[in-house]
Amino acid sequence: MLDIKRVLVPDIKEFIREKELGQLKEFLKYLKPQDIADLLSLEDFEPPEKALLFRLLDKDIATHVFSELHFDDQEKLLKYLSSSETISLLEDMDPDDRAKLFDELPSEVVKQLLLKLSPEEREDTVTLLNYPPDSVGRAMTPDVLDVTEDMSVDEVINKIRKAAKEVETIYDIYVLDKQKKLIGKVDLKSLVLSPGDTKIKDIMEKDPVYVRAQDDREKAAKLIKKYDLISIPVVDSENKLLGIITVDDVLDIMEDEATEDMYKLAAMEAPEIEEEYFRLSPLERVKKRIPWLVGLLIAEIASSSVLKKFDQTLSAIVSLAFFIPMLTDTGGNVGSQAVTLIVRALATGEIDEKKLGKVILNEIFTSFVLAIPLSIVGFIIAFLVSSSLHVAFVVSFALLVVVVLSNAVGLLLPLFFRLFKIDPAVSSSPLITTVVDILGLLTYFSLATLFLLK
Amino acid sequence: MLDIKRVLVPDIKEFIREKELGQLKEFLKYLKPQDIADLLSLEDFEPPEKALLFRLLDKDIATHVFSELHFDDQEKLLKYLSSSETISLLEDMDPDDRAKLFDELPSEVVKQLLLKLSPEEREDTVTLLNYPPDSVGRAMTPDVLDVTEDMSVDEVINKIRKAAKEVETIYDIYVLDKQKKLIGKVDLKSLVLSPGDTKIKDIMEKDPVYVRAQDDREKAAKLIKKYDLISIPVVDSENKLLGIITVDDVLDIMEDEATEDMYKLAAMEAPEIEEEYFRLSPLERVKKRIPWLVGLLIAEIASSSVLKKFDQTLSAIVSLAFFIPMLTDTGGNVGSQAVTLIVRALATGEIDEKKLGKVILNEIFTSFVLAIPLSIVGFIIAFLVSSSLHVAFVVSFALLVVVVLSNAVGLLLPLFFRLFKIDPAVSSSPLITTVVDILGLLTYFSLATLFLLK
Repeated sequence: MLDIKRVLVPDIKEFIREKELGQLKEFLKYLKPQDIADLLSLEDFEPPEKALLFRLLDKDIATHVFSELHFDDQEKLLKYLSSSETISLLEDMDPDDRAKLFDELPSEVVKQLLLKLSPEEREDTVTLLNYPPDSVGRAMTPDVLDVTEDMSVDEVINKIRKAAKEVETIYDIYVLDKQKKLIGKVDLKSLVLSPGDTKIKDIMEKDPVYVRAQDDREKAAKLIKKYDLISIPVVDSENKLLGIITVDDVLDIMEDEATEDMYKLAAMEAPEIEEEYFRLSPLERVKKRIPWLVGLLIAEIASSSVLKKFDQTLSAIVSLAFFIPMLTDTGGNVGSQAVTLIVRALATGEIDEKKLGKVILNEIFTSFVLAIPLSIVGFIIAFLVSSSLHVAFVVSFALLVVVVLSNAVGLLLPLFFRLFKIDPAVSSSPLITTVVDILGLLTYFSLATLFLLK
Repeated sequence: MLDIKRVLVPDIKEFIREKELGQLKEFLKYLKPQDIADLLSLEDFEPPEKALLFRLLDKDIATHVFSELHFDDQEKLLKYLSSSETISLLEDMDPDDRAKLFDELPSEVVKQLLLKLSPEEREDTVTLLNYPPDSVGRAMTPDVLDVTEDMSVDEVINKIRKAAKEVETIYDIYVLDKQKKLIGKVDLKSLVLSPGDTKIKDIMEKDPVYVRAQDDREKAAKLIKKYDLISIPVVDSENKLLGIITVDDVLDIMEDEATEDMYKLAAMEAPEIEEEYFRLSPLERVKKRIPWLVGLLIAEIASSSVLKKFDQTLSAIVSLAFFIPMLTDTGGNVGSQAVTLIVRALATGEIDEKKLGKVILNEIFTSFVLAIPLSIVGFIIAFLVSSSLHVAFVVSFALLVVVVLSNAVGLLLPLFFRLFKIDPAVSSSPLITTVVDILGLLTYFSLATLFLLK
């Protein structure tokens, strides 16, 4: 909406230059925390200017702004804050945001900071940090409003009024029994719509959908999406409430998971949670890309060896070589399509184990329908370039086989990985291409040797 | 959580067989609408059984269940409902869900159904259907709670109590002036936390973030994600409130947009909104995939021609052909990585125009760092297979050029498309691979001719 850089930066620079800090403080009050965070991540301001801006914010807003900042900018800002400012900021942060920050800071710094936190906040943070990075536990916030089923609507609303500042959402309230086990859920909508003396047990939703702290965070995202929830409760193995995941966390999770799948499909190491590729150092970038590139290059020994094996065929009919890229590229293209289709359908839940058999049969049929026009076009191109009907025939027939084969490999390789509990997205387009090349070249030169070399 | 197929299907079949419909009705009350929708999309039930189950649902639940169904299942179910049942169902649906259904139904059927709707609902539906498919207008719901700034908190809460059933969310309430223009927003949280006689103007958030009906729905998604909103208001060019987009719509939008980008990156036509690839007929599937495959195959005329041009070099040193796949595949792999990185970063907003120059310079440096180890590994492989230091040198040097070139093409092609307002994801990995192949082969054989053919 607002072009922050063009509109605000010159104004703020002006305020700083003229030392009108009172005016600047008022000016900042008109901005949303997310926009202030955007300002603080611009390179237009020097670090001391950023620290100055940050100090002008009201305490609540400052905490919010800080939580919205990217880790790099958080770290830079912390260097300019005093020890007491730092501690007060950390104490005010939501436990999940604080855990995210601690996750990135050097462990020595974390140890020191942890010691300075209040025992309660320290415990919260350590608990969160102990869950695996992709788990629900790591992403949850432990600050939840909970009530008992015997409370009345008025009592609950009073409790909400008192606690509203400490919790992340007041729209979903969880109902616990005496052992702190989750037995129900009541939303603010039902509370507002019910008479004040109604008992919670009469309006609560029993057995709400939940996740466990050890579950993959993708599971929480899927359930929130399916059931259109504002939040989902997180429980331990005894069904005791540990925290919640909110829908705004899920928006981040979904974006991360889609990025992860895309990176893997392009044969790159998946980004860490909230890691931004273009903020990495050149060496860190290389580290994400080089292992797959080198591995796949080594695998090309196979394609080179196949070609070497057919040395004599190649020497006899050099024009066969003209169509190697056409054949391998088309195989790669068909395989990339197939692998993308299946990986995405598995990720969104469009298909699952039960439908797999039918899907595969169906797709194999489709691949024949794809193969026929491609092999006709291939025939025409090969004839135009080589002026040999024989070569054109072999190219065309090889294309037919390659298309069907590539589609099958693109479909089956991700399913094979899944069977061994490996993320299906690992079967990237480049991997499929490499596998399919070897099969395609074998087919092409076998056919050529058979039909042309007599 | 619940394995619907294994646990529920046998029970329900039993109820139907024993004609215990009263029991079945009670049984269904324990299920969430989304789970009933899952049941109705299973092939375990015959269409008449599905219609029977559907008729047993309470009216509110039935509407919700119907809205959750995939279009194919909606259409099948409608065939078993009477005309009056159909109309009553359509009248109760949310306008956005109804517009989605009408969008898919044959236009003749839509015309007839529209005539039977109440004038008010008809107008709502026609208005929504007139917005472009990817726009905010198409995805919004027009049923919104609006209040004026002079109302008190108690008055607003009373209004909420009366209207709660008709609107999609009561968590965000929009404040309009006398001309129905949007001037503020107040959430249920502030209402509950404020004394009953507080005026809305004293607690409302002024100038809330909004979108226009013509905007791309991706914009609504980005703003809801950035500002952690439950809903975003949709206004016309005069700032009059038309409807809202809610966060659960955004979860669907984000999934669709990620799928769209992945499909395009794999050189396939993007799916329509909420279209599921594996529900399409084989011919529809072929239609999504064949245009790109044929186009790219035709483009291979270029790679074949390049190779033909170097006919003599190839005849003289046949072993050069052994490394064609290695060279083209590595180029394709590097290009796929680069295009995926840039397309995803543009989609998530990680980079924008202002940072582009720096990003490109940075990545070109990275590509040199990538190229060196790859060219060393290439040298070793080429020497092992060809036993010729000369060939190995040419392969290695060509790899160096190809890696840097491929990375540059992968980065720049999507940016070039963006410049012409074409979705950057159109520059798919297969397209990059094809372009890079031609450049790579030219380099490889030019080097070979220069150094080896004397």
